[in-house]
Amino acid sequence: MSGQALSKFKLPKGFWAGGISAGLKKSGRKDLGLIFCPSGAKTAAFFTASTAQAAPLIVSKRHLNKNKGVTKAIIVNSGNANCFTGLRGIKDAETICTTLAKKLGVKTEEILIASTGIIGRRLPKDKIRTKLPLLINSLNKQGRGFPEAILTTDKVIKLSRRSLRVGKEIINIVGVAKGSGMIYPHLHYLHATMLGFIFTDCLIDKKALTFAAQKAVEDSFNSISVDGCMSTNDTVFFLASGKSVKIVRNQEYFKEFSRLLSEVCLDLAKAIVKDGEGATKLVEIVIKGASSRAEAKRGAFAIANSNLFKTAIYGQSPNWGRVVAALGQAGLDVRHLKASSTSLKKKEVRVRVNLGRGKAASRVFTSDLSPDYIKINAAYS
Amino acid sequence: MSGQALSKFKLPKGFWAGGISAGLKKSGRKDLGLIFCPSGAKTAAFFTASTAQAAPLIVSKRHLNKNKGVTKAIIVNSGNANCFTGLRGIKDAETICTTLAKKLGVKTEEILIASTGIIGRRLPKDKIRTKLPLLINSLNKQGRGFPEAILTTDKVIKLSRRSLRVGKEIINIVGVAKGSGMIYPHLHYLHATMLGFIFTDCLIDKKALTFAAQKAVEDSFNSISVDGCMSTNDTVFFLASGKSVKIVRNQEYFKEFSRLLSEVCLDLAKAIVKDGEGATKLVEIVIKGASSRAEAKRGAFAIANSNLFKTAIYGQSPNWGRVVAALGQAGLDVRHLKASSTSLKKKEVRVRVNLGRGKAASRVFTSDLSPDYIKINAAYS
Repeated sequence: MSGQALSKFKLPKGFWAGGISAGLKKSGRKDLGLIFCPSGAKTAAFFTASTAQAAPLIVSKRHLNKNKGVTKAIIVNSGNANCFTGLRGIKDAETICTTLAKKLGVKTEEILIASTGIIGRRLPKDKIRTKLPLLINSLNKQGRGFPEAILTTDKVIKLSRRSLRVGKEIINIVGVAKGSGMIYPHLHYLHATMLGFIFTDCLIDKKALTFAAQKAVEDSFNSISVDGCMSTNDTVFFLASGKSVKIVRNQEYFKEFSRLLSEVCLDLAKAIVKDGEGATKLVEIVIKGASSRAEAKRGAFAIANSNLFKTAIYGQSPNWGRVVAALGQAGLDVRHLKASSTSLKKKEVRVRVNLGRGKAASRVFTSDLSPDYIKINAAYS
Repeated sequence: MSGQALSKFKLPKGFWAGGISAGLKKSGRKDLGLIFCPSGAKTAAFFTASTAQAAPLIVSKRHLNKNKGVTKAIIVNSGNANCFTGLRGIKDAETICTTLAKKLGVKTEEILIASTGIIGRRLPKDKIRTKLPLLINSLNKQGRGFPEAILTTDKVIKLSRRSLRVGKEIINIVGVAKGSGMIYPHLHYLHATMLGFIFTDCLIDKKALTFAAQKAVEDSFNSISVDGCMSTNDTVFFLASGKSVKIVRNQEYFKEFSRLLSEVCLDLAKAIVKDGEGATKLVEIVIKGASSRAEAKRGAFAIANSNLFKTAIYGQSPNWGRVVAALGQAGLDVRHLKASSTSLKKKEVRVRVNLGRGKAASRVFTSDLSPDYIKINAAYS
């Protein structure tokens, strides 16, 4: 998103955010961000399905169990994933939360934490703790500094917003995300390295927020893949400050709110794929005629994660055999398959597959595989 | 294998093979091969586990059902996979077998067929049929012409041989294979695009041959991955002409024969990975301390098929985080994990992972992911 779009970025009522450089990135770029909601935000949280879960995820889950789903602050660092760092890593994350809680005058369990960056190196917690006053000082209602602070190999910041008019009042929804490589999120409720933060100022109970959030996640973050590699740190937080209109399930505005929440998440998910490491194209894969939605999604991801398909897209070389091979590998019946695509020469390509068996469908988004992906990842550490 | 090594290549007793150019490859290189065993060879056959099976696999299975596991000839073409070609493709393969059977004076069901090349284009069966006299004329006891005729993107031919002395007699085992991309074979008995042909002149019953072959396949062809993409055409045939020593199960020589058969298959499987599209390194991944062999193999393949791991190997960049992430994605418990590797600067790299949980182990072979893989596959069609 351009600098102009960024200047229009404003958080929903009740939220502050900021970001600084704490020296975690060698480049000197911003690498530490903070979200603050003094009144407490209703929270729906989603974490990676990987069995190798990073320390910040373990700590955030503990805090969510204690705080009954009401969060006051989230601290986020880039440049270090604090993953595969053992019990020390968990203690480091906990110590940062405790120190921050004291400085903000809130309880430790009201703080959540997220990290992204290299795996297997100890988080320099003292660098972070020393910078906490500066970080708190950076808080602002526009959220300036935060979107940049969470980036790693991302080339652009990812923002999306929608608003819903209810009588004379307005519900604002704003989403911020990062993600470029190791992107194949499988987010479980309470349980990508993609990070997503979705803010809204409506007053909503946790159950209704979670219901809308789960639907939004399934069709967005859980429907993308850059490289088929699931991260140990994927996390998405939905935060509702309660400072605007009250909405409840089965009420007329809820459906519209849910739809807009899904749109914000889809915007961010597509932005992550577009900014995928080395990506030159955004590819939408739609599978129809499946016997179940699960079969359709399994097939769509089999295509999305096939290196042979991805290199053919990069080469703008129509090669349906690779679609057939990917679906066969996934165990799908391809005897009645029909497939088509829009021009492979365009920046955005749509591939449509009809399995000719049933009525279920699914849609996923992926990028192509280019020599730049290899360049970026051959030298990452 | 060098030209010198090729000159030493000789088929076991009872077999003839040859190869010619039938114009299926634009390059004009050899693309049609034939194996002939006039006395009939006991056959153990293995085909891809993909649900998208190419026509030659369907036809070969039919013939194996009818011929009671005794095969007299195998015709193999490169340049066209005859896959996703519908009923016409099956009829084309069948017609080629019928025509060849007449010319060789054998029954149609005594002929097997294998193809490798692009998917989704009709096999030019008339080009092939016209060339059958020339193909038959190329048959020779050394098998000259055959190893080249089955190649696609392969840079080298793949051969391996062993012999076993039994008293004054010798059992010969010779293997020929091709494979470079779309390499992630999951071969089912009677059910890779890798092609493998293992010849032996011993006299062995089908059950004992199958027993030894299954073991050999599991630890070789079923333990390699170049790009994680399973082919629609993978096929391995084990052929025993019965022209040398008789061996039966539980007999002293059987164990040694089985071991040598496994060695030949492992030689060929490693040669396929070394010649993997764009490969600069051969990587051996050993997982120990798993609770089951299946878990160890799932973990080893999760690492082998991770684009982030493969690019790190290409970049000679030690990044254990990517090993952890791959294992976490595969659902393995990584809390007690210990990992090490030999120098990443060498051509052959060995990665060892100990899960610290149980006693089961597995070993797989893979290649790195280089810009050349993309170059080769962006323009394949």
